[in-house]
Amino acid sequence: MKQIESLWQEVRDLSLGNATAVRRLDSPPAPLEFLRDFVSLNKPCLISGAATAHWPAAALWRDRAHLTRALSSSSVTVHLTPNGRADSLVPIDGGSASSSPPPSALCFASAHAQRVPFAEALEMISRSSRESNFVAYAQQQNDCFRSEYGPLARDCDGHVPWASEALGSLPEAVNLWIGNHFSETSFHKDHYENLYAVVTGEKHFLLLPPTDVHRMYIEDYPAAQYSYIKETGEFKLEVEEPIKYVPWCSVDPYPSPENLESEMAKFPLYFNGPKPFECTVKAGEILYLPSMWFHYVKQTPDDTGLTIAVNYWYDMQFDMKYAYFNFLQSIEYQPIHDYTGTEEESEDL
Amino acid sequence: MKQIESLWQEVRDLSLGNATAVRRLDSPPAPLEFLRDFVSLNKPCLISGAATAHWPAAALWRDRAHLTRALSSSSVTVHLTPNGRADSLVPIDGGSASSSPPPSALCFASAHAQRVPFAEALEMISRSSRESNFVAYAQQQNDCFRSEYGPLARDCDGHVPWASEALGSLPEAVNLWIGNHFSETSFHKDHYENLYAVVTGEKHFLLLPPTDVHRMYIEDYPAAQYSYIKETGEFKLEVEEPIKYVPWCSVDPYPSPENLESEMAKFPLYFNGPKPFECTVKAGEILYLPSMWFHYVKQTPDDTGLTIAVNYWYDMQFDMKYAYFNFLQSIEYQPIHDYTGTEEESEDL
Repeated sequence: MKQIESLWQEVRDLSLGNATAVRRLDSPPAPLEFLRDFVSLNKPCLISGAATAHWPAAALWRDRAHLTRALSSSSVTVHLTPNGRADSLVPIDGGSASSSPPPSALCFASAHAQRVPFAEALEMISRSSRESNFVAYAQQQNDCFRSEYGPLARDCDGHVPWASEALGSLPEAVNLWIGNHFSETSFHKDHYENLYAVVTGEKHFLLLPPTDVHRMYIEDYPAAQYSYIKETGEFKLEVEEPIKYVPWCSVDPYPSPENLESEMAKFPLYFNGPKPFECTVKAGEILYLPSMWFHYVKQTPDDTGLTIAVNYWYDMQFDMKYAYFNFLQSIEYQPIHDYTGTEEESEDL
Repeated sequence: MKQIESLWQEVRDLSLGNATAVRRLDSPPAPLEFLRDFVSLNKPCLISGAATAHWPAAALWRDRAHLTRALSSSSVTVHLTPNGRADSLVPIDGGSASSSPPPSALCFASAHAQRVPFAEALEMISRSSRESNFVAYAQQQNDCFRSEYGPLARDCDGHVPWASEALGSLPEAVNLWIGNHFSETSFHKDHYENLYAVVTGEKHFLLLPPTDVHRMYIEDYPAAQYSYIKETGEFKLEVEEPIKYVPWCSVDPYPSPENLESEMAKFPLYFNGPKPFECTVKAGEILYLPSMWFHYVKQTPDDTGLTIAVNYWYDMQFDMKYAYFNFLQSIEYQPIHDYTGTEEESEDL
């Protein structure tokens, strides 16, 4: 269906640009400018100048003593996985996804979530490595910054003032993220306008607009749950009973070299289509990640070994763009892979 | 293709509402509110309170002496047609469209445009009637308010301040419209954000969102030109040579009773789909008519026999919504009418 591929290109030609870079602003935009030139256009931007320079966190959060002191009586939730890939697709056999079986053999694995004293959480995250049998990532996305991490509130703004004025509301949720260089988040989208502020280290985003939905190969995968057995230091992966299906993006943008060819054959619309937008968000910068954009995230820690970020989720408008998206997604368009390596199109119209 | 009809409904359920009424504001919105709640959503609104009360025109333009005095040395363009339907579909034989031949026999007829002293133009518009063989409508859409009608500029605002601030620009064009109750404009869309201010009389709009494009049955019609022969008081209609095709909406929302059944059979998606939004704009009110919305307009004069309006065209953003629209329009979906009266679908996918 050539019209769908024309749509990918036209959105870039008209509005997003054909470079893979995200528009950079040297200072926070005025609310009206932010609304007109970015939110209304569903177009990302990176505020690289003076975005959070005034936050006490900018200096304080590089000091672990400050963090452990502030949170000395707090317990927080850490997410444990064998490889740092929380909320991602793994073979039902529980191994890593690197063996690339046909999608039917994959499940959507949620991390083992554990609430521990903050000092212990920080220790687990720091200790995370290929050797440690587990990777710990503090990434509870339930407004945790205003609950579990309440004592840190005074170190940051409670909202992004120019965004709150533009969007006409305060954030629906504010989340804190503490990870190391093993932590990554697979491609997905959120139904929020997202302002993502990095405080220490760097976050690396791959971004695709909602119009590229067919390139994500969203399929239903059975929900599964990791449990970490402390005694043996091993993970158990169990599919939820009764079975529950989660629609999730099938594409891993960085397959291992030995899998690259088979992944490119399975997901040609992703690997052969326009390159995703790329954006590294450095400490002190804020990324505006528009609602409904698909994003993949990995990170680089600072010299203390941590990447710490705060993100603000604002309610999105379920408007004409959203209805257009649902219409687009309702049109089936996937080159079907068969094992002769040839491809044919299926179109449900 | 059921997905297209679901789109019509979802846009109404999520954003526009299922009533046929347009959202009414009792006072002009703040720029940020206008941008967030209407422009960004591509959603119309009617500013019914204090929109143009401060314009000298509100009082002055009900006085013909004022108009003829101000424009005593101006000549303006009037558009002459046999029936008040400028820029509309008529049978190539030149009769009125009421005989409803198959679309192939219709052409897109432009009015006979004539530049005359303003007093004479006003006289022609007032004299327009079924008896007068012609209907005159001053509806030159080339920024005429700032050119032909320059001397009236001081009677109105040169732009709509809250709209200019929201949209970040001044109007690209400002047009004046002087008509009587025979003047009407067939369904079409404009690639502008439109602020439409009625000064005397009333304008009656039928509105359909861009997502309803298939309901307009847009087809290519040969361009034709009316010429009015003063001596005989008759119109000649000639198809342009070399032939030039104009894509235009095929639907007449108010067919004559004897044609209603055949029109409903030809255009079932329009007549059987969701009702269009209806909006009467009274003197002193401003309609925000979003870019890309299909609109049909007729009018009721005030007691002086005239309907006078000023509209401000602002540049639109060619953004993701516009790309989605082009994608939607590229999907062919028209129940094909055959003369047994049965229908089948054609789908180009």
